[in-house]
Amino acid sequence: MSTQPQSTSDLVVGMLLFPGLTLLDLAGPYEVFSRLPKARVHLVAARFDPILSEKGVLITPDTSFDDAPTFDILFVPGGTGQLQVMEDDRFLSFLREKSQAAGLITSVCTGSLILGAAGLLRGYRATTHWRYLDLLGLLGAQPIPERVVIDRNRITGAGVSAGIDFALVVAFVLFGETTAQAIQLAIEYDPAPSFHSGSPKSADSSLVNRISTATGELYEKRRRQIERIIALSREPTRQS
Amino acid sequence: MSTQPQSTSDLVVGMLLFPGLTLLDLAGPYEVFSRLPKARVHLVAARFDPILSEKGVLITPDTSFDDAPTFDILFVPGGTGQLQVMEDDRFLSFLREKSQAAGLITSVCTGSLILGAAGLLRGYRATTHWRYLDLLGLLGAQPIPERVVIDRNRITGAGVSAGIDFALVVAFVLFGETTAQAIQLAIEYDPAPSFHSGSPKSADSSLVNRISTATGELYEKRRRQIERIIALSREPTRQS
Repeated sequence: MSTQPQSTSDLVVGMLLFPGLTLLDLAGPYEVFSRLPKARVHLVAARFDPILSEKGVLITPDTSFDDAPTFDILFVPGGTGQLQVMEDDRFLSFLREKSQAAGLITSVCTGSLILGAAGLLRGYRATTHWRYLDLLGLLGAQPIPERVVIDRNRITGAGVSAGIDFALVVAFVLFGETTAQAIQLAIEYDPAPSFHSGSPKSADSSLVNRISTATGELYEKRRRQIERIIALSREPTRQS
Repeated sequence: MSTQPQSTSDLVVGMLLFPGLTLLDLAGPYEVFSRLPKARVHLVAARFDPILSEKGVLITPDTSFDDAPTFDILFVPGGTGQLQVMEDDRFLSFLREKSQAAGLITSVCTGSLILGAAGLLRGYRATTHWRYLDLLGLLGAQPIPERVVIDRNRITGAGVSAGIDFALVVAFVLFGETTAQAIQLAIEYDPAPSFHSGSPKSADSSLVNRISTATGELYEKRRRQIERIIALSREPTRQS
């Protein structure tokens, strides 16, 4: 039930917000999507209350679940708040409902686990943050260790900063090379990291081990939760 | 006058907000700074009212000018709102005052023009968004067409997405290689743009011309404003 009548020529983007989202998961794609031709970007949450990001930035949604239109791009960021969202029936129902008519169903980082929990990646190739990639398999997806993965109308990005590469791919898919390149130049995306340690493939193995250990508890929490969700969905009394 | 007594071991970061800032200018560095050891990141504005970013995201500051502590890192993002800030005496005074005791004085994108307007780049090598780089010269800085430029305690980054490279350099300068690399791996910063059009050096010249033309009016507005500011500051009745 949209309260905002949408022009057929607008590109309607829905970026879902939840407490504990990672700011850059949202901001990278936002900066690209908001520059797409005739883009109208909605920051969508259950209610209009300001939402506290993972590290403490307070962002105010501009569209509530009840007012959300049909989206050409439906997008879910990641972040530690993903754990709560995975068991938030209202959020998952909204996601499932909106995915029906959405053009592209997309995510970055652990937002992919949320898509998975909503059953939207079953049988799809997908990616997420490197540390949690194998968990996608538990959710019925085929985990692919790439920066951006396209499978039919699902486009997923790897961890946090991958959102920029991801969104430029979306720009390319929808509008072609020139539009994607123009946005890349406008946001001066000519990356020049000082070190080659942005992926477990390139980083020093001791560093990969250190980060893996530091995130071990969170990994286990995420794994156990997914197993619990799957077990519940298999109970005959709770058919999904 | 700080109301928040600060522990000597905290790393105190002040990120200045203003209406019309570019979200990614803020979010890239934020995602890195907030992961620095013992970091306490403040989102600082004159008042606590929510601030509308350039493309429409509403962000709430957590620290007012009156409550701001001394910063180890003082940071200014860019965005079209830079035009208003350049003539906002309160903002510029705050910036000048806080720069006195700040460890590092930093900016990304057209935030560098704001540092320049506050007189903080006179005699310094610096960078900004490629389209506005020469304007730094008018403000007494030496424009350098690099992604990140360090000159004494000034560290500046190029346009929008350069904030990630910039902030990882800050992480390296303050904490060394391992910390910078660990954050790079945590945010999976292993950039893989599909095209090489993120800089005027690599992009197709017709694309560079197109973007230059499209931003011609904004460029002129920025140039004329800087000339006006400089003329005013030279009037004998208004010594700066």
